[in-house]
Amino acid sequence: MTGFSDICLSRMRRVSTATLTTQMFKLGLRSRFMRGVRPLGSYGANLVGPAFTLRNIPAREDLDVMEGFANPEHPQRKAVETIPAGHILVVDCRGEAAAASGGEILMTRMLKRGVAGMVSDGGIRDSAAIAQLAMPVYCAGPAAPLNLVAHHATSLQVPIGCGGVAVYPGDLIVGDADGVVVVPAHMAEDIALNAEEQEQLEAWLLGRIQAGARLPGTYPPDAETRAAYKAFRESQGEA
Amino acid sequence: MTGFSDICLSRMRRVSTATLTTQMFKLGLRSRFMRGVRPLGSYGANLVGPAFTLRNIPAREDLDVMEGFANPEHPQRKAVETIPAGHILVVDCRGEAAAASGGEILMTRMLKRGVAGMVSDGGIRDSAAIAQLAMPVYCAGPAAPLNLVAHHATSLQVPIGCGGVAVYPGDLIVGDADGVVVVPAHMAEDIALNAEEQEQLEAWLLGRIQAGARLPGTYPPDAETRAAYKAFRESQGEA
Amino acid sequence: MTGFSDICLSRMRRVSTATLTTQMFKLGLRSRFMRGVRPLGSYGANLVGPAFTLRNIPAREDLDVMEGFANPEHPQRKAVETIPAGHILVVDCRGEAAAASGGEILMTRMLKRGVAGMVSDGGIRDSAAIAQLAMPVYCAGPAAPLNLVAHHATSLQVPIGCGGVAVYPGDLIVGDADGVVVVPAHMAEDIALNAEEQEQLEAWLLGRIQAGARLPGTYPPDAETRAAYKAFRESQGEA
Amino acid sequence: MTGFSDICLSRMRRVSTATLTTQMFKLGLRSRFMRGVRPLGSYGANLVGPAFTLRNIPAREDLDVMEGFANPEHPQRKAVETIPAGHILVVDCRGEAAAASGGEILMTRMLKRGVAGMVSDGGIRDSAAIAQLAMPVYCAGPAAPLNLVAHHATSLQVPIGCGGVAVYPGDLIVGDADGVVVVPAHMAEDIALNAEEQEQLEAWLLGRIQAGARLPGTYPPDAETRAAYKAFRESQGEA
Amino acid sequence: MTGFSDICLSRMRRVSTATLTTQMFKLGLRSRFMRGVRPLGSYGANLVGPAFTLRNIPAREDLDVMEGFANPEHPQRKAVETIPAGHILVVDCRGEAAAASGGEILMTRMLKRGVAGMVSDGGIRDSAAIAQLAMPVYCAGPAAPLNLVAHHATSLQVPIGCGGVAVYPGDLIVGDADGVVVVPAHMAEDIALNAEEQEQLEAWLLGRIQAGARLPGTYPPDAETRAAYKAFRESQGEA
Amino acid sequence: MTGFSDICLSRMRRVSTATLTTQMFKLGLRSRFMRGVRPLGSYGANLVGPAFTLRNIPAREDLDVMEGFANPEHPQRKAVETIPAGHILVVDCRGEAAAASGGEILMTRMLKRGVAGMVSDGGIRDSAAIAQLAMPVYCAGPAAPLNLVAHHATSLQVPIGCGGVAVYPGDLIVGDADGVVVVPAHMAEDIALNAEEQEQLEAWLLGRIQAGARLPGTYPPDAETRAAYKAFRESQGEA
Repeated sequence: MTGFSDICLSRMRRVSTATLTTQMFKLGLRSRFMRGVRPLGSYGANLVGPAFTLRNIPAREDLDVMEGFANPEHPQRKAVETIPAGHILVVDCRGEAAAASGGEILMTRMLKRGVAGMVSDGGIRDSAAIAQLAMPVYCAGPAAPLNLVAHHATSLQVPIGCGGVAVYPGDLIVGDADGVVVVPAHMAEDIALNAEEQEQLEAWLLGRIQAGARLPGTYPPDAETRAAYKAFRESQGEA
Repeated sequence: MTGFSDICLSRMRRVSTATLTTQMFKLGLRSRFMRGVRPLGSYGANLVGPAFTLRNIPAREDLDVMEGFANPEHPQRKAVETIPAGHILVVDCRGEAAAASGGEILMTRMLKRGVAGMVSDGGIRDSAAIAQLAMPVYCAGPAAPLNLVAHHATSLQVPIGCGGVAVYPGDLIVGDADGVVVVPAHMAEDIALNAEEQEQLEAWLLGRIQAGARLPGTYPPDAETRAAYKAFRESQGEA
Repeated sequence: MTGFSDICLSRMRRVSTATLTTQMFKLGLRSRFMRGVRPLGSYGANLVGPAFTLRNIPAREDLDVMEGFANPEHPQRKAVETIPAGHILVVDCRGEAAAASGGEILMTRMLKRGVAGMVSDGGIRDSAAIAQLAMPVYCAGPAAPLNLVAHHATSLQVPIGCGGVAVYPGDLIVGDADGVVVVPAHMAEDIALNAEEQEQLEAWLLGRIQAGARLPGTYPPDAETRAAYKAFRESQGEA
Repeated sequence: MTGFSDICLSRMRRVSTATLTTQMFKLGLRSRFMRGVRPLGSYGANLVGPAFTLRNIPAREDLDVMEGFANPEHPQRKAVETIPAGHILVVDCRGEAAAASGGEILMTRMLKRGVAGMVSDGGIRDSAAIAQLAMPVYCAGPAAPLNLVAHHATSLQVPIGCGGVAVYPGDLIVGDADGVVVVPAHMAEDIALNAEEQEQLEAWLLGRIQAGARLPGTYPPDAETRAAYKAFRESQGEA
Repeated sequence: MTGFSDICLSRMRRVSTATLTTQMFKLGLRSRFMRGVRPLGSYGANLVGPAFTLRNIPAREDLDVMEGFANPEHPQRKAVETIPAGHILVVDCRGEAAAASGGEILMTRMLKRGVAGMVSDGGIRDSAAIAQLAMPVYCAGPAAPLNLVAHHATSLQVPIGCGGVAVYPGDLIVGDADGVVVVPAHMAEDIALNAEEQEQLEAWLLGRIQAGARLPGTYPPDAETRAAYKAFRESQGEA
Repeated sequence: MTGFSDICLSRMRRVSTATLTTQMFKLGLRSRFMRGVRPLGSYGANLVGPAFTLRNIPAREDLDVMEGFANPEHPQRKAVETIPAGHILVVDCRGEAAAASGGEILMTRMLKRGVAGMVSDGGIRDSAAIAQLAMPVYCAGPAAPLNLVAHHATSLQVPIGCGGVAVYPGDLIVGDADGVVVVPAHMAEDIALNAEEQEQLEAWLLGRIQAGARLPGTYPPDAETRAAYKAFRESQGEA
């Protein structure tokens, strides 16, 4: 349904956005982390899912009026009603933090529809209520003003910028307490695998550090440490 | 005492700043939400009250010295001592987030005097203690430096800018978790009424969305939904 | 070990950064508070200790690669391994909030080594885990990307800028919920003493304000109030 | 060809962007002036023409490589080759001033094709040469880096934001030394007429001010001054 | 008329704003230079005169309408009509560069009235024409939109902030190609004298540097160089 | 003397910074252009030379006083006196545009000493005079205040950041009207050669565009165009 394997998605739920930036850095991608986009609530698990995009441009006073919302083709409303379950609505607000890109009713409708979450580089209104929803929302922060004061929704499922990062429809979005990274769709399976391996190694290295090991030789691991890790993995029946 | 009816104030305590921006947008007011001003603590109820204003200009090293505070006419100290109970001190700090516009002793004195709260587009020192006070404080964030490093208090009860919004003495200030809006005094009674009606409708619409209704026809409501709402209201004996 | 007396350090643990900015203002130092540097977690006590500095410059793609970390002389890794117990790692990231200046393994190693804390004007990755560590970390906020996307670590124990403030190795760093101040080393003993006296007076004044005293005469205290405070101190056997 | 009458275009060449903001303000449009977009050279006449839009999103390292330009469908190159004569290329660079949105060869090709000018909220490279071309270019300033470091061109003739203003294909762009305004297409004929009338009046008022008239009664004109202006116009055979 | 002696004003016309910042630094004033305020044209001589202040706050859509200008008490218009000859209109625009704080007719009226110049931390419309006027104008740059989109003029001759600097009515404003400094009125006579002496010395030192002297001993001058300068001054009959 | 061949330096004087960013992009260097650094005057030729670096940190009021300049070891003064002829002084001002990093006497001394130019990401005072010197100066713009209000000079010939770019002592600096790029020393010879070849090709392509050629096939050149260019080069006896 999402275009990604179950194992990819489940790995992405376990690894951190920090690890994903490292894996993408190794592939030459240096800037896949959204600037200024934070979780609105405290979410126990990662936000993971393919991007469904909504693009806004600046509002124009004569066009962006309340009556527009009655049109079922209004892109913001259509986005909420047509985004597939398991996907993440990613909204280009040009980083405008002082107007909302959504509120409680729209978020609730997406939750009902099985949407995995929302990411915006704009604000969110009704933030206290939305922070309690069972659907993670990442944004530039709370902002009361309705979207019409700043935004005109133009189109769905086109490539956008969000938090300074290019987002193509179908890219894999991952969010945790550090923020949000965007993984190009075609790289996601490999990156998930390598990220999980990196995290397993680092969890073991962290144990050594907690036990008093010095950084040199441990982080990054030298040949001896790598051998010890290999032995550990084999002892776990994982090699 | 505040210049507003009790019903207006009590409605304002129940509605959200999001709803108020929508009501003001309908009246042609697009920018009545303060940029970058956040609640310092978690407040169970809205901040509501008329604005009592304090204006600052940039400090000058030879004028803005510790000794100035001994003068009971110092505008910052006079503001704290003369602001009427139920009012809100709104402070123009030109958005300077790295200096304080008040601390624990001044906030405590205002609390004792029955002041409804404080709003500043500058910082607040002693923020951990103030966040626990039974008086809501909204600001640009914690900042340790005393006001003298950045500010010279010039006058009380003049029109000011705060968070990019014009604030006239007596305007009705409303704050919630999303932030702070400024309602022009002469519009406040009508806006409170309309905001409450909007919220009652939206609460009922939210119930429909939670029950699985689709956006089209529901939000915004079409004629059929509006009729159903009317019936609901009549069934509640409210029509 | 830290170059400061135990009484100085223990006073610094009790006073607020707000009070310290006032004391330094009296000495002509107006800008010793870091801009945009916040505690990552909720820490019960002040961060206090001498600065151990790490300087970064912007990264260059051909120089700043993963392999560099294997070198035990890499300044970031060497900083973590050589900073003395009780000191605070202060990192110059030029205010770049969208890349990390450290993560969980490095923080854990510093905790194991008895380091007092870390202050950076850049981001921190693995922020959720680090916020739970028993070592306070202050930074510009969570940020997933590894340091290599933005930073090249150049040197240890040189004077740096952090949060817009000059930090010399050995300066006394103090952090609380308001943020971080930097006290020049040679002034720290006197400032600690004066800050404590200011806070004792203000605690007593706050009691008066809580009891209903008016600002004039109380804050700042006039001769009568000062006499009453003197009597109170004497009654406590402190004069 | 441009969709506007010759008289509209010729009026737009004579009036100032200042006057146009006043006329649009009267129609409820408050924000049609681009922020941070300046003329690169000194142009004797206004930039006037319908908008032909090019949209960019942030670059991605693996997609945005030199080889892409060989594709004749590359949107930036296709824009230059297909924009009609007399039109203005308006480029959405998300306000990124530190990368170029075009250089000398592309500008020269547009000049050869009879394009009226270019407007970008990004940078321009080869700025010294381009400032001398007989085609006005407005941008965020000179910037050497090729567009690939920051931009991925996605599409032509879609609504965009530029300098914070919504630009729809076919909107009438007007630029002078003050900067660039965007006139909605359907309002342009009326606005051009009213702007010209305003300027004729103001030129006459300026003459009065230069002759020593006081502001009150003159600017804005009272009934007497308006009558004198009417008489002047009639004496010119214009009424 | 201006409150300053002719010799003070004529010295201020000869010295640079750079020298004035040095003289004020010696007196403990570190921040008297306006940020982001530049000359609109090329002016042969310094802008010099006492400040006449105009204060703006943010606009409100229902209050700030075209009709307001007809009121001769509108503060902006009244400022232009009542500022004394030889004074400088200093306008607080809160640093908002994308709206105008004046245009050609107002500037022309001030020129006719003998006003010495204008300084604003906002924009200026009709910038090309105004740059040619025989009255220096300093501002944040050209901007077409009328002031009503951003500003509500509130009052004249109150202390303001402009470019981040406190400006009190009557302070001595000095502008040159570097920008604008604000000299507190009561210090101006002494500062003018000391600045002139500094510049005479530095002109002589510059001659030595141009003749090949090394910095050490020359800049700053040691005892020998100071003696040589004293001899030079005496030879000029100036001692 | 500079560590670069004469042919490298002379090529660098002929090519543009735009071309150099393209050449470095091909080598994986995406961000070697300084943000916000502009030429102070109009210079006929490129600024070219190896970097001699000066590092500043934020000022501290008790340390950064006028008396410090008398010390011949003061890093700013020592830089001016010891930078080799033909080199460029590159100054790290952390992007602080509102204070000067040098003035007329220091610039004149460097000119006398045969220094090739100065680049700073801070301001410059005495800007009108310096813009006329026969030594190019690039900076963040004019700024009157002396460096002591913002900067403490710490060291010479260490790696620095300037305009957001890493600058190592000996890197080759090139500036033109677009701004300043920093070429890593070890790549400079190759980049100069390739840049010159790119510019020769582009000059020939520009001729074709000026003669009416379409972009496709011409820019970038296809096989046929490349063959024509090869024939042209051979006809010039250059192949």
